[in-house]
Amino acid sequence: MSVTTIDYGKLFSAGLPDPAVRWAPFPKYYFVGGNNDPEQIPIEGLVEAAASVLRREGSKLAIYNLGMGPQGYPGLRQFVADKSARQRGIKAPIEDILITTGSGQGLDMVSKLLVNPGDTVLTEEYCYQGAINRFRKLGAKLVAMKLDADGIVIDVLAQQLAELKAHGITPKFIYTIPTIQNPTASILPLERRHALIALAREYNIAIFEDECYADLLWDNVEAPPALYALDPGCVIHIGSFSKSLAPALRLGYLIAGWDIMSRLLPLKGDSGTGALDQMVVAEYFSQHFDRHLGHLNSILRGKLDAMTEAVAREFGAVAECWTPKGGIFLWIKLPAQIDVRKLVKPAAAAGIVFNPGPEWAVSADNSSNCLRLCFAMPSKETIRDGVAELARVCYEQTGIPVRSGNITRS
Amino acid sequence: MSVTTIDYGKLFSAGLPDPAVRWAPFPKYYFVGGNNDPEQIPIEGLVEAAASVLRREGSKLAIYNLGMGPQGYPGLRQFVADKSARQRGIKAPIEDILITTGSGQGLDMVSKLLVNPGDTVLTEEYCYQGAINRFRKLGAKLVAMKLDADGIVIDVLAQQLAELKAHGITPKFIYTIPTIQNPTASILPLERRHALIALAREYNIAIFEDECYADLLWDNVEAPPALYALDPGCVIHIGSFSKSLAPALRLGYLIAGWDIMSRLLPLKGDSGTGALDQMVVAEYFSQHFDRHLGHLNSILRGKLDAMTEAVAREFGAVAECWTPKGGIFLWIKLPAQIDVRKLVKPAAAAGIVFNPGPEWAVSADNSSNCLRLCFAMPSKETIRDGVAELARVCYEQTGIPVRSGNITRS
Repeated sequence: MSVTTIDYGKLFSAGLPDPAVRWAPFPKYYFVGGNNDPEQIPIEGLVEAAASVLRREGSKLAIYNLGMGPQGYPGLRQFVADKSARQRGIKAPIEDILITTGSGQGLDMVSKLLVNPGDTVLTEEYCYQGAINRFRKLGAKLVAMKLDADGIVIDVLAQQLAELKAHGITPKFIYTIPTIQNPTASILPLERRHALIALAREYNIAIFEDECYADLLWDNVEAPPALYALDPGCVIHIGSFSKSLAPALRLGYLIAGWDIMSRLLPLKGDSGTGALDQMVVAEYFSQHFDRHLGHLNSILRGKLDAMTEAVAREFGAVAECWTPKGGIFLWIKLPAQIDVRKLVKPAAAAGIVFNPGPEWAVSADNSSNCLRLCFAMPSKETIRDGVAELARVCYEQTGIPVRSGNITRS
Repeated sequence: MSVTTIDYGKLFSAGLPDPAVRWAPFPKYYFVGGNNDPEQIPIEGLVEAAASVLRREGSKLAIYNLGMGPQGYPGLRQFVADKSARQRGIKAPIEDILITTGSGQGLDMVSKLLVNPGDTVLTEEYCYQGAINRFRKLGAKLVAMKLDADGIVIDVLAQQLAELKAHGITPKFIYTIPTIQNPTASILPLERRHALIALAREYNIAIFEDECYADLLWDNVEAPPALYALDPGCVIHIGSFSKSLAPALRLGYLIAGWDIMSRLLPLKGDSGTGALDQMVVAEYFSQHFDRHLGHLNSILRGKLDAMTEAVAREFGAVAECWTPKGGIFLWIKLPAQIDVRKLVKPAAAAGIVFNPGPEWAVSADNSSNCLRLCFAMPSKETIRDGVAELARVCYEQTGIPVRSGNITRS
């Protein structure tokens, strides 16, 4: 610490995270992160929305929270209420809606609301890393819920809950992404949703429903109503504008009744979510949501097809893909003898970044041969070339895949 | 909790804050909060800036942090670097600048960096409530630094530090607002700045410099260079766009060398600050900062004059005002026998909200007869009427002020 004139080492608090490393630009094949397609940002629509909303309400920016309270810009809350009613079956007045600074803030707030060190939390066996990390940081013990192609396997969960109860353990909540699960991109069927709620009520466990990707459904895919729509009395619901529009905006939302909302609000702690972001998105999406999402989803579907085709071509039968019903990622299972963590460094040397399964799972035991590839940001050409490069790296490291389609490696 | 279908009371974590109450619109005379003058928001300038920056770089919104790293939009960091060099004497490359989600996030991060429960922190005896609350929440013990009309009284501080050392106590940091102190609005002279740094180095204490209000200086008022400019090796510097432009935007900044920055970055935890806010402010202020601030400060000065004249007219000699050299608030001392906390309820009944001294001080002992009135948001007429109402309430509750100027109460 050559530039410092005091010894900061004596002053740092205990238990700090490791220091950051200097940021570096993305490598060529960047298949991680919840990024979107840069070409689909509706520039002119946002320009028009900004002009319109600033001229109508811009003077309110002079006041914290626009002088309209800590739950967020009412125009955006109304949009969330309308969209959630229309598409997710949720009947919530804007008093039950909170705009958050990204859905990550919702994750932080709900975790703090419910988790004491040592508490048990149930998560899907393959699960969003940001959620797993947050729960564990607060000292939660995670119990993995078994997944199949339709999401949580209810019978297994029922058995787990009975066993936990027999051991005197009451989990605090079930964290689930029922609609475009992250990373498997499945959709939980209606009867399983009802069964999940029945279990939550039987065992007095809250359900924490994360619907970050629920706007990204392929054409003709229908999702059942949100869990919150089926029973708002035991569900806390979060969503995001990162996936439907743009993650750099930092806009998410949380839906809960006042009993819960009143306990969550004091945990927000950021003096409000950025108001210009809120105003512009409300103005734009109030008019253009369906058209924007219809177009975006067709583009994303095309990129997924490019990726699944490339995986089939390059990896052949050794790669099993879960079939996404929407979203921005593909979850791939390789043969059990491959530990994808050993591919991270050689892949990075080839300009490839991917999510190794153990970072997206409760346990490495059933995920060390899995990986997640995100397809929204890269072009189709980059997807094709990157998957081919990844197959080459995998072959060099593991001898697999030797052959697929008309490609033979040696 | 009638609408819930499970008993959340069994699930809440320990030590939650009190529940929020439903938000209500501001009362008539709202003299609290770091709000700005709604009429001074440069609407057309922001519309133009939004169009320009969105057309140039809007597609980057598809990527977290615009794909440009966690320290914030480079255009805004460059603006902060230029402004800080020009006006505060700070030589910092943009690598040493972090855009924060309001300066409150900077306060959170620096507190977490340095404070363990039981640690001692030095703050000015009258001090920003948001800082006091954050430090105490982490378990810090606050030691008050004596203030006079020019800020921290160095001789007294030197004596305190010697005494703390004699008791084996090493404070973690000195938190100071040296340029437009909150709430006294004083400016620390250059020789005191040098003396403060010498003490920090002698006792190995970090200086946490908060310059949230340093852009709001009256015409012909000169501020000495920032403490960070005098010794970046022992100072962490934060600033804000809430006061120079608009608090609803949630934009602040932090300046520190990489030794410190690399430890702070992992504590940010919000996946980036809202990018549209950053881009629009960078675009607008890169061209219009001096003109905007010159105009804003002349307006604020006029409102301060309206307030000090009203206080003199309504309270007369019983109210001693600290003389602001800039900013948005007035710190007033009433006779020692008045406890302003007893005025809060009757004032609220008359539609008046103010900051009672004990909420803006380390101790109630020397602040229970003090109050802070903010003047940026209300109109001059509201300021005049509100101060008159406050004097009436004060007289009804305490018998003071009986008479001032040509006003006699009975």
